[in-house]
Amino acid sequence: MTYVSQQRPQLAAAELAGRARAASRALAKLPNQARSAALIAVAKGIEDNAREILEANENDRRVAEAAVAAGVMSSAMFARLQVTKNGIFEMATRVRDVARLPDPLGRRLAVTELDNGLVLCKESCPLGVIGIVFESRPDVVPQVAALALKSGNSVLLKGGREAAHTNQALVATWRECLAAFTSAPVDSIHLLQTRADVKELLTLEGEVDLIIPRGGRELVRFVAQNTRIPVLGHGEGICHVYVDRNANIEKALRITLDSKVQYPAACNAAETLLIHQDIASEFLPRVFSKLRDAGVEVRGCSRSVALVSKPDILPASEDDWATEYADLILSVKIVADLDDAIGHIQRYGSGHTETIVTEDHEAAKRFMDDVDAAGVYHNASTRFADGFRYGLGAELGISTSKLHARGPVGLEGLTTYKYKLFGDGQIVADYSSGGRAFKHRPLT
Amino acid sequence: MTYVSQQRPQLAAAELAGRARAASRALAKLPNQARSAALIAVAKGIEDNAREILEANENDRRVAEAAVAAGVMSSAMFARLQVTKNGIFEMATRVRDVARLPDPLGRRLAVTELDNGLVLCKESCPLGVIGIVFESRPDVVPQVAALALKSGNSVLLKGGREAAHTNQALVATWRECLAAFTSAPVDSIHLLQTRADVKELLTLEGEVDLIIPRGGRELVRFVAQNTRIPVLGHGEGICHVYVDRNANIEKALRITLDSKVQYPAACNAAETLLIHQDIASEFLPRVFSKLRDAGVEVRGCSRSVALVSKPDILPASEDDWATEYADLILSVKIVADLDDAIGHIQRYGSGHTETIVTEDHEAAKRFMDDVDAAGVYHNASTRFADGFRYGLGAELGISTSKLHARGPVGLEGLTTYKYKLFGDGQIVADYSSGGRAFKHRPLT
Repeated sequence: MTYVSQQRPQLAAAELAGRARAASRALAKLPNQARSAALIAVAKGIEDNAREILEANENDRRVAEAAVAAGVMSSAMFARLQVTKNGIFEMATRVRDVARLPDPLGRRLAVTELDNGLVLCKESCPLGVIGIVFESRPDVVPQVAALALKSGNSVLLKGGREAAHTNQALVATWRECLAAFTSAPVDSIHLLQTRADVKELLTLEGEVDLIIPRGGRELVRFVAQNTRIPVLGHGEGICHVYVDRNANIEKALRITLDSKVQYPAACNAAETLLIHQDIASEFLPRVFSKLRDAGVEVRGCSRSVALVSKPDILPASEDDWATEYADLILSVKIVADLDDAIGHIQRYGSGHTETIVTEDHEAAKRFMDDVDAAGVYHNASTRFADGFRYGLGAELGISTSKLHARGPVGLEGLTTYKYKLFGDGQIVADYSSGGRAFKHRPLT
Repeated sequence: MTYVSQQRPQLAAAELAGRARAASRALAKLPNQARSAALIAVAKGIEDNAREILEANENDRRVAEAAVAAGVMSSAMFARLQVTKNGIFEMATRVRDVARLPDPLGRRLAVTELDNGLVLCKESCPLGVIGIVFESRPDVVPQVAALALKSGNSVLLKGGREAAHTNQALVATWRECLAAFTSAPVDSIHLLQTRADVKELLTLEGEVDLIIPRGGRELVRFVAQNTRIPVLGHGEGICHVYVDRNANIEKALRITLDSKVQYPAACNAAETLLIHQDIASEFLPRVFSKLRDAGVEVRGCSRSVALVSKPDILPASEDDWATEYADLILSVKIVADLDDAIGHIQRYGSGHTETIVTEDHEAAKRFMDDVDAAGVYHNASTRFADGFRYGLGAELGISTSKLHARGPVGLEGLTTYKYKLFGDGQIVADYSSGGRAFKHRPLT
């Protein structure tokens, strides 16, 4: 059996959003067991359909190879586009992982007895329809589709043109598995095809409840600036490691290196190292030598440049403090004290993840209370900012927005809540008149 | 002592937002006790300063009277503008009520042991700077300023021109009380003066974390369409009462009347009554007679018009189903069954509050699960949708948005959270290499 459907004439984004909305209503009614069973069926379908997906990827790669040869596609982008047989089994495993997560729906967030026989229940429920705009990694398709299905939401997906065949094969597999083996509605997932579709998607306020851009800064900015639909997406990750006067040097070395080097392209990698002046002459040469060994280019403030032999450390410009390198580059600044460090972070940080290395618990407390960021750490690498590491079981992305979801966002970010009020004929006039009074007794 | 400050040259909104941001950092550090004590001091200041506030209101009323006489201000607007001595004591009482609420900050929303000595704590914290744009009721000033201060946020307020003196007196009182008697920063509250300030406020993305429009539909729409800052504000309240086939008629009568008549201008008042066809001939004449006695104009579908003598019930047009009357007008439709009722609500409802009257618990469950609204009620008046009635202790407004806050929004809507990670030198490389594994043990 082959799952890949015939190419059909593509419908407008608005029409697909309408179908997705109707499907989301059916989906919201399915119990957790049915949603999870659907995911397990889809995971098997992805495995069974590996050959077709690899062929589709082969098509995309053929075009992409020419683009790389012509110098219009980077080799990094080409690498992200590539799907291997192992990669397909990995996709299926991830889908099964999501199936096993606890049900994010119907959680009772609060139960209050307003009065005798009048009980208010705040309960989690799906958002409805989610739009996802992503760049070249095709494994985004099963990942976000799984999270959406698990949380009872429909998705409209739009991937990069360069992975069009692969994405098409994955979505077609998903839809045909839903149709053949599950009680979940087929129209809970759609793939948009064109840039015009994306533009239309961004106008569908009221039809689409949330837009998630997955990709580089430019994509996130483009989406945020072109829609009135709420957007869940991180902006920049300008994360700092602050080595306090009372830092344990060994911990500071480990944490600085891990935060910068372990995966420098990640948004939770450190971009700037702040060092208390009292510890700088001891710490800076040691950390510098380790950074150099790891291939990190260091750009320092004038005081730090003076502490290290000149050709090895470059002078930092004002721009460096505000730059997310996402690369093996680190800016270094010597600060006067904790307040100076916090001030620098307030000015240049992006509200993502900030860590202090110190044995002084008072200093750590002040840093963690005063720094306004999604993550504030004490003696830990910034690289821990991640949904899996936080135990959320999955990650949609990391939000530097303060509304709705902040920091690593898991399934909960795809839910909202409703208030259910269970009464027996109660009316407000009886309370307004003073005839009855509210009890407001928490039952949870 | 008089608290009302000299008029000073007004600073630009951006400059005030910068000061508010700095003040919010100081405010966020104050313990609950200090924030509550500040509120109690301000409440006393409002009472002590009653004469000056009343004089300022007298100034506003003098201008407004002329406007009413000239026909350019409605008498309803004039009434909302008016502040009485009792009103001032009521304002102070409300501020003290907010002072007594539980601390919304520093609540541990989740604690997870990621590994030995590596503990993640999700903790509530302030948003930062809130912009509030409101219409003529000056009592909005102490109400929202109290909620902001209690939740550690700075506020930028902009009220209607017609209440400019009163608002100025209230904000000046507030600021001078903060300066004289409290540890809270004076710059945590500012009053903006002009329409140009509002326009500037709406552009201050990054400086202002949340905008709350308090007022009519036009204001809410204007704000939402002119800013990229997140907006917390309800849109329309098109609420329905659905009287099911198995409704208890007495409950249905009480709930319909309360939902429509108890305070028709409120957004949680019902606009449309849906009646199951099997109960219509019994229920409709009875409810109609009561509605008529209460002065309600009824606009019915063709089937309901046929059940009531013609001159008493007007035929409803398509527009009626989509209209928030906010007045003693009710549209009535006879529906085929529960699905028909849910379908009508999905099409015309605004996602605010919907109620079913029935003794059939299966029908109630289906209604409450399937209807996508901030509040879904069984056998209770839609008028219960209110922060005080829900036991939130205060209300900023009712949100029909699904993101961040839905339904009645209390202090929690002015908070976000941060993740605090307490470590002892842990780095991600140890986990990526498989050397260590996460425990992810919930400690709450």
